[in-house]
Amino acid sequence: MKKVLIAYRLLPEGLKDLEGKYDITLPERSYLRKEEVLEMIGDYEVLVPNFSFYTGQDIIDRGTKLELISNYGVGYNNIDVEYATQKGIAVTNIPNSTREPTAEFAFALLLAAGRRIGYYDRKLRTDDGVSWGIYAEGGLAVFGKTLGIIGMGRIGQALARRAVASGMHIIYHNRNRLDETIEKKYDARYVSLDELLRTADYISLNAPSTPETFHLIGEEELAKMKPSAVFINTARGNMVDEKALARALGKEKIAAAALDVFEDEPNILPELLTLDNVVLAPHAATKTREYRIGMSIEMARNIVGFYEKTFPVSRVNK
Amino acid sequence: MKKVLIAYRLLPEGLKDLEGKYDITLPERSYLRKEEVLEMIGDYEVLVPNFSFYTGQDIIDRGTKLELISNYGVGYNNIDVEYATQKGIAVTNIPNSTREPTAEFAFALLLAAGRRIGYYDRKLRTDDGVSWGIYAEGGLAVFGKTLGIIGMGRIGQALARRAVASGMHIIYHNRNRLDETIEKKYDARYVSLDELLRTADYISLNAPSTPETFHLIGEEELAKMKPSAVFINTARGNMVDEKALARALGKEKIAAAALDVFEDEPNILPELLTLDNVVLAPHAATKTREYRIGMSIEMARNIVGFYEKTFPVSRVNK
Repeated sequence: MKKVLIAYRLLPEGLKDLEGKYDITLPERSYLRKEEVLEMIGDYEVLVPNFSFYTGQDIIDRGTKLELISNYGVGYNNIDVEYATQKGIAVTNIPNSTREPTAEFAFALLLAAGRRIGYYDRKLRTDDGVSWGIYAEGGLAVFGKTLGIIGMGRIGQALARRAVASGMHIIYHNRNRLDETIEKKYDARYVSLDELLRTADYISLNAPSTPETFHLIGEEELAKMKPSAVFINTARGNMVDEKALARALGKEKIAAAALDVFEDEPNILPELLTLDNVVLAPHAATKTREYRIGMSIEMARNIVGFYEKTFPVSRVNK
Repeated sequence: MKKVLIAYRLLPEGLKDLEGKYDITLPERSYLRKEEVLEMIGDYEVLVPNFSFYTGQDIIDRGTKLELISNYGVGYNNIDVEYATQKGIAVTNIPNSTREPTAEFAFALLLAAGRRIGYYDRKLRTDDGVSWGIYAEGGLAVFGKTLGIIGMGRIGQALARRAVASGMHIIYHNRNRLDETIEKKYDARYVSLDELLRTADYISLNAPSTPETFHLIGEEELAKMKPSAVFINTARGNMVDEKALARALGKEKIAAAALDVFEDEPNILPELLTLDNVVLAPHAATKTREYRIGMSIEMARNIVGFYEKTFPVSRVNK
């Protein structure tokens, strides 16, 4: 029986496909620390890592029996995929179960930042309150506005579908331009990153985190944005220079932001916590019990599919 | 020149259609109080009332020259339309400019309540913080869930369009069942109010406030809802028994609510201000500068259209 080390305490509802056929180890606390994984990994063929540590050369070297790293996430910047590949270890991710939840959360954040949902909810509970007048402390329109999507993959497209139905126009930037049929579906126009930053009213980051996208949005990029721009990040924290973003928000160089991811999670830059024009979330884009169980199922089926060929496998290396 | 008394300090950008042809009076403060309107109204042919007082028999009786009440809102529960009709005074409202903004805000609230956007943003800024674990303090799924819309008029349908693109199923209750072509557009199923309350995951109130809809949602209706139900009100506060709702939320008889309107605006029931499972907003569904100017334009064109027949008029009485 293949031994599977799962570094998150996932609910059994999502692991039924493994039951009886794989020897599963789950942590007693909510997740395993790196030192624990290092100590245990020598006995396991499969590792399901988590995002609180990097699964790099040290873990892979100790995992002498490792055949598969089955990631519980769509992004896999928590894994040294290149080294795993060198060692002949397969790496898989879960793009299907994360697509709609993440796009949904990105759109929830977009609306919350534009229409000031977080701000109102916070202020009404304080002694200061909020003005009920017809203009004071108003938000920004969404209907009729342009959404610039950086990274028009599955999540970006699921976001575009929501935005189009809400009366938004779509422009996008991507490593490769999409097929015309996909562009037509969302009436989406391919533009340079420069044009996207300069013209979009709302800008959503939906690209993968890679060495090339580190600090993709920094001081220079923020300076190109409209003063009325709203920036949304549900991708990865390291793609944004958080200090530059906090400065831009503090000086109202851009109007607002909504952030689900941060450079040093679970720590949030203290400046951001005091700003009224930002909506903050604790990396919760897929955080409902139902969505998280769906992700477990997809993750488990990558394992079963890898060994038994009974499910399709979302492999990220060759 | 017809004299127009506008009880809100509307921005001149929205009143261009009246310029030079109508004699406009705007308040110096953000709005006129009832006593001021009572004192002034005798000189005016047109009144644009506000929502901080009721335009009833007293105002209408003093308005001996009144020909038109041009409401700055789609709901007109702030006006005694029946009495105005008896006196031969026309009443108009603004359904077009309010439709998309209100549906947009209702959907923003739905997502915020389900996915806990307000909660996360508030808690992350406190010393308590929020768990970054994979299940703790998670929200509720939206994708694949059923939205029950009470009042499937223009706003309800604009909400349905957004919800369908977000993977929701639509059921609705309305005074009259809609045409099959409209039902098909949203794959919407007409159900009794009872069935809607018992089966919907999300319930949005989008009906007009009338004597028949006073406390439409009370203790009995809340008791029919699922424990996982999320209730959204962007219609009018008096359609909901606020105390019963606060009790249901406090005892977690329903999962969450999002409220833009209240029984005694601008006062919010103190119990609601302390609950974590409610998102609160200050009657801000159309509150962006751009949307509010669009509303002024529609309101002004009701006046011009009424006198000059150059614009269509949204008349609410005969």
